[in-house]
Amino acid sequence: MEPGPTAAVLIIGNEVLSGRTQDQNLAFLARRLGEMGVPVIEARVVRDREEEIVQAVRQLRDRCTWLFTTGGIGPTHDDITTGAVARAFGVPVVRHPEAEARLRAHYAPGEVTEARLKMADVPEGASLIDNPVSTAPGYRIGNVFVLAGVPVIAQAMFESLAPALQGGPPIRSRTVRCRTPEGVMAGPLGEVQRRHPEVEIGSYPFFRRGEVGVSLVVRGTDPEALEVVVRELVEMLRGLGDDPET
Amino acid sequence: MEPGPTAAVLIIGNEVLSGRTQDQNLAFLARRLGEMGVPVIEARVVRDREEEIVQAVRQLRDRCTWLFTTGGIGPTHDDITTGAVARAFGVPVVRHPEAEARLRAHYAPGEVTEARLKMADVPEGASLIDNPVSTAPGYRIGNVFVLAGVPVIAQAMFESLAPALQGGPPIRSRTVRCRTPEGVMAGPLGEVQRRHPEVEIGSYPFFRRGEVGVSLVVRGTDPEALEVVVRELVEMLRGLGDDPET
Repeated sequence: MEPGPTAAVLIIGNEVLSGRTQDQNLAFLARRLGEMGVPVIEARVVRDREEEIVQAVRQLRDRCTWLFTTGGIGPTHDDITTGAVARAFGVPVVRHPEAEARLRAHYAPGEVTEARLKMADVPEGASLIDNPVSTAPGYRIGNVFVLAGVPVIAQAMFESLAPALQGGPPIRSRTVRCRTPEGVMAGPLGEVQRRHPEVEIGSYPFFRRGEVGVSLVVRGTDPEALEVVVRELVEMLRGLGDDPET
Repeated sequence: MEPGPTAAVLIIGNEVLSGRTQDQNLAFLARRLGEMGVPVIEARVVRDREEEIVQAVRQLRDRCTWLFTTGGIGPTHDDITTGAVARAFGVPVVRHPEAEARLRAHYAPGEVTEARLKMADVPEGASLIDNPVSTAPGYRIGNVFVLAGVPVIAQAMFESLAPALQGGPPIRSRTVRCRTPEGVMAGPLGEVQRRHPEVEIGSYPFFRRGEVGVSLVVRGTDPEALEVVVRELVEMLRGLGDDPET
């Protein structure tokens, strides 16, 4: 299913691993990249520890076409992503003149603190990613895109860089909702999947608002193949006495 | 900060990497484990691919005291966690007699399908984790706890196994909310962190409902140390003209 480009996501931040913060960046990036034909094949969450970030950046950027990191590029002591990404690439951290100019233009003269200028530091060779929300830019180095952790900023940065990505055919999905328990349909469902290796069929039971059921999600790049598989699933479920919704 | 046991979380499932499903299990496990004095030091999300699950299980279980996996233990073709965990441990998959007995008791005789009995399969040597929601158990093998992906079931399984975990001192946190921008307080904030390596201070800007501010989160196991650091942060912020809330 992935002849084209792939992506990985690295979420950097103790707040997600402590359970204090519910990450929203993975779901956003995964959805947007999928629409662009770039499946996310792995995600990791690591602490604010340089060595752990360095290792994760190295491993993930080797595994995929593009790696997106979120978090750790602000002005405070716990923002250590840039030093770690620079180490992962074996380059020094330098102050980016254009980033510095943007920050100096954004803040009143007396407000340009050294901490704020730290947000103009990037690994040598990086190019900037616009931040239309709060100015301090993200950046790209090699196949790694370094984004802010605050979701509204991460999303704005992603939309700034997205036009530069050449994705594959968009990954589409169709959902078939039914009442037949997984344990009853598993056999014939597996047969539909075996007949159609060109799509990926996921089976997700749901329990909500007193309702119990299963969502069968068919994903793939070929709309006609999805249509054929949805029809086969509906037929299979009707054969089991169900009345599925598509 | 981690003299005691540590944990990692492995989320298995294409639905999280496609952005279709917002994972809730990491935040739950991280919060509950933190309360029990077991910091989560890394999390990963992998696809429903056996080789990728095997590699992640091997790497993560070596890095921490306990690994918790979620997802992929249902009856359908995309539920491949058990085979992968067994391979990671180099043991065969066997049918667990007690798990089979529970499933046979749960379903009416005509409803005991082969697909459902697959949920009684475990890596050889595994012990069961109760599932008070829908019977089909999770299991533990070595330092790996294998839980369901549906949040309500994962949570119930966790509460079943939690009494067996001997955690360290609970990790407590205190939050100081303020209006001073990060770029203004970063210097003195970093000094507070350097004076108090026994705690971890995270700085998290927030933008919501028209409010802009920063949450400073102090985490550690010693309540008195937290109190001292909160007092120093409040003093530091008042010195900057702020009126922080604790």
